[in-house]
Amino acid sequence: MQEPYLIELQKIGDEEIGYISVAQAFSNIPFQIKRVYWIYQTPDVVERGNHAHKNAVQVLVCLKGKIKITLENKQRQVVEFMLDNPNQGLYIPNYYWRKLNFFEEGICLSLSSSDYSEEDYIRDYQEFLL
Amino acid sequence: MQEPYLIELQKIGDEEIGYISVAQAFSNIPFQIKRVYWIYQTPDVVERGNHAHKNAVQVLVCLKGKIKITLENKQRQVVEFMLDNPNQGLYIPNYYWRKLNFFEEGICLSLSSSDYSEEDYIRDYQEFLL
Repeated sequence: MQEPYLIELQKIGDEEIGYISVAQAFSNIPFQIKRVYWIYQTPDVVERGNHAHKNAVQVLVCLKGKIKITLENKQRQVVEFMLDNPNQGLYIPNYYWRKLNFFEEGICLSLSSSDYSEEDYIRDYQEFLL
Repeated sequence: MQEPYLIELQKIGDEEIGYISVAQAFSNIPFQIKRVYWIYQTPDVVERGNHAHKNAVQVLVCLKGKIKITLENKQRQVVEFMLDNPNQGLYIPNYYWRKLNFFEEGICLSLSSSDYSEEDYIRDYQEFLL
């Protein structure tokens, strides 16, 4: 069973010109990047996520603000990450239930190993625990 | 010779829960996504870019604020795009010199068809025009 872990990404630049951070498939990202999505303009009170994936693994990056990511595996072990740094990625294995809470106009980037497939989603928490 | 063009991406959600936009390789993005980078915390007065690629093609998305993207081909034809919408991507063919100007704390996401290779960059404008 894989565990979630943080990935330190490059941070190129300085405060006068701004910064670039880079994710490259099979380099600092351990999979082919088939899908990229971004979550934006999310009010701070909203909780997103509330699903797990059967196969897809992902790396999440907080591009602005802060995002609290709560991950739970089928053994009900819970681990929490506060992302607030655009040069830090969070690797999420498959079969991890995730909750995302957004703060300070947080923007979340997600790099995913799989094309979209509704069959890959587990959206029912009780079914997830089975 | 390919031309730059805008790609309308999905925008899923509403103002109460926020939005998700999605880019998927070989679907709405016409290439394999080998590298993803993001440009952030760029002061408004800074101009970035000032290079062209020999092979890499890219899609740029403005995730926050506004980004003016000025593209020029070897025939010195110039076209300008103002990106201010996280569900809109700008396809940039190879051999286009690009300048990026950031406004309102703009954040730029770039999806690239190639792994990083310094040899793929043309950083000298006169050499670009040859």
